[in-house]
Amino acid sequence: MIRARAAVAWAPGEPLDVTEIDVAPPQPGEVLLKVVATGVCHTDAYTLSGADPEGLFPAVLGHEGGAVVVEVGEGVSSVAAGDHVIPLYTPECGSCRFCRSGKTNLCQAIRSTQGRGLMPDGTSRFSKNGRMIHHYMGTSTFSEYTVLPEIAVARINPEAPLEKVCLLGCGVTTGIGAVRNTAKVEPGSSVAVFGLGGIGLAVIIGAVQAGAERIIGIDINPAKFAIAEQLGATECINPQDHNAPIQEVLIERTDGGVDYSFECIGNVEVMRAALESCHKGWGESTIIGVAGAGQEISTRPFQLVTGRVWRGSAFGGVRGRSELPGFVESFQNGEIPLDTFITHTMGLEAINNAFALMHKGESIRSVVHF
Amino acid sequence: MIRARAAVAWAPGEPLDVTEIDVAPPQPGEVLLKVVATGVCHTDAYTLSGADPEGLFPAVLGHEGGAVVVEVGEGVSSVAAGDHVIPLYTPECGSCRFCRSGKTNLCQAIRSTQGRGLMPDGTSRFSKNGRMIHHYMGTSTFSEYTVLPEIAVARINPEAPLEKVCLLGCGVTTGIGAVRNTAKVEPGSSVAVFGLGGIGLAVIIGAVQAGAERIIGIDINPAKFAIAEQLGATECINPQDHNAPIQEVLIERTDGGVDYSFECIGNVEVMRAALESCHKGWGESTIIGVAGAGQEISTRPFQLVTGRVWRGSAFGGVRGRSELPGFVESFQNGEIPLDTFITHTMGLEAINNAFALMHKGESIRSVVHF
Repeated sequence: MIRARAAVAWAPGEPLDVTEIDVAPPQPGEVLLKVVATGVCHTDAYTLSGADPEGLFPAVLGHEGGAVVVEVGEGVSSVAAGDHVIPLYTPECGSCRFCRSGKTNLCQAIRSTQGRGLMPDGTSRFSKNGRMIHHYMGTSTFSEYTVLPEIAVARINPEAPLEKVCLLGCGVTTGIGAVRNTAKVEPGSSVAVFGLGGIGLAVIIGAVQAGAERIIGIDINPAKFAIAEQLGATECINPQDHNAPIQEVLIERTDGGVDYSFECIGNVEVMRAALESCHKGWGESTIIGVAGAGQEISTRPFQLVTGRVWRGSAFGGVRGRSELPGFVESFQNGEIPLDTFITHTMGLEAINNAFALMHKGESIRSVVHF
Repeated sequence: MIRARAAVAWAPGEPLDVTEIDVAPPQPGEVLLKVVATGVCHTDAYTLSGADPEGLFPAVLGHEGGAVVVEVGEGVSSVAAGDHVIPLYTPECGSCRFCRSGKTNLCQAIRSTQGRGLMPDGTSRFSKNGRMIHHYMGTSTFSEYTVLPEIAVARINPEAPLEKVCLLGCGVTTGIGAVRNTAKVEPGSSVAVFGLGGIGLAVIIGAVQAGAERIIGIDINPAKFAIAEQLGATECINPQDHNAPIQEVLIERTDGGVDYSFECIGNVEVMRAALESCHKGWGESTIIGVAGAGQEISTRPFQLVTGRVWRGSAFGGVRGRSELPGFVESFQNGEIPLDTFITHTMGLEAINNAFALMHKGESIRSVVHF
């Protein structure tokens, strides 16, 4: 049992409590990590707000981490103390039916315990004064020390700065991966990106890498247009500047619609608009944003019968252990400008300020350093 | 101007009027066809009923024809008098942006005039006592003679029996093509087919050809199960035999859902069930049925974010002039059992009986011989 400084979510809607907790040693197949830095993502805020019906409390939130292996449990062979890793909320066991299919990154090996905020053996490694604290998304990076299953860490180049590549643990990889793995955007394509937060900006980077010819950023906050264009958007549109629905605006501007669209917000009406902005005959729309509980998407089936395709993407379709090291290399080679995403850095004691900045729309990502 | 026996739809909801009409000669780029036989499809009935908001009257309906070229207009070079052809309601000009894309069969060369029931020059070739009669779906096969643009006829093997291969002009090709071109079903897959009418049965044939391992037919009329199993369904389910929704039944029976599903009815609730019957991570659902005007499909976006894909298919994604001759060859080689689909044959004077049989669910296809 070791002591760790951590930000604990004791109850929905309350600020995080920066305090000391107890972390139990890694069990067989598990690894103990020292978290060097963690991003703060909208999904953490969604759960903390209490709006997520699957949210569990108390919990150590956080899922965008950069960490170093401190100790490995019995039988762990793929990583060793000293390795640099990125925690994976989507693990990769390599042997379940999903991993073996070669068609998806949604490894199901530890899904049920992860969903219950527990390690695969059905217990937690976190507690304070004997009171159990839940894990979160299988990662819990808002703690100086955390424990993960071996299958849920990606070993990366130790030369990469953990306080930057931590962002590859979620949003940036999700956006780039959705372009590359899910939509498979082709050179010369036209692309519409709905929502210019962290995910949307990462989609723009992915679209540039894929050789898209036209990249249209869409947001109701025009303050985001400059950075979108800096990253490669060829034009930006504020739907509030138009009387017609945004899908009609896009269809007119692109002579029939875009080849690929991406929804990066989590708004079901925007998901519809994104699909209906696609070109008849071949346009494909990918949903990345996570909608509120119980909300539904709709459209006329004619949209699909006339050749549009509706998809979704989770963690960009990226198999973490296999592919994430390559994303880190891309960053090292200057192909992924993570610095552009990091608008604020702070110590753990100021983590609640990261949530405040996000709520005010003043940050892309805050990175918390331990 | 020649005289032709035809079945005219003078007004919605009324029986067809079997009478003589005048057919004007083919204009430049057009061909005059003698129709040998035509299938009677649900889409004809939908338009005749008046429920289709785009239906135009009076009109010569019919779109599943087998015909012989009688005369060609100026500049026609790809077919000649005596050629055997299948009329195409989805033409293939080869030069529009859609044809050139290589991604879709939805040639748009003559879409606007076809939608207005007219030939590409904006006029009709059909009349009676000087009153203009509309074309329908660009084909109008319920007439002994009909006129089509050259780009809307597929020249086929003259040895093929037109009174059978006429069915390749719509339903059978639509079903097989949706499996082959749209969903691209892989060997060893599991497939669910919702609705065991003509399209659904054709999907079964396509699934067998694609090497699907498990083919599940679904219909609320168990009288259709015998023929589905004869064609290759490995099992059939009547949703009314179960208390749970059909998607739950399928997910349980297939250990997580099917690899591919097809909606062959046009019911938006069934379209949802078909999507939600797909396997997490990779299941793909293809909508073939045509829903009623204004109806919408819905689901939770989580269905897509967790890896399902929602598609649609029109005429099975088949480019008529390029691919339909190959379907005819497949029939000639015994690979497409069209005889199984032809439950009734009759002369033109009895065409209203074909609609009555269809409404009663007593036919798969009636073929009218001229």
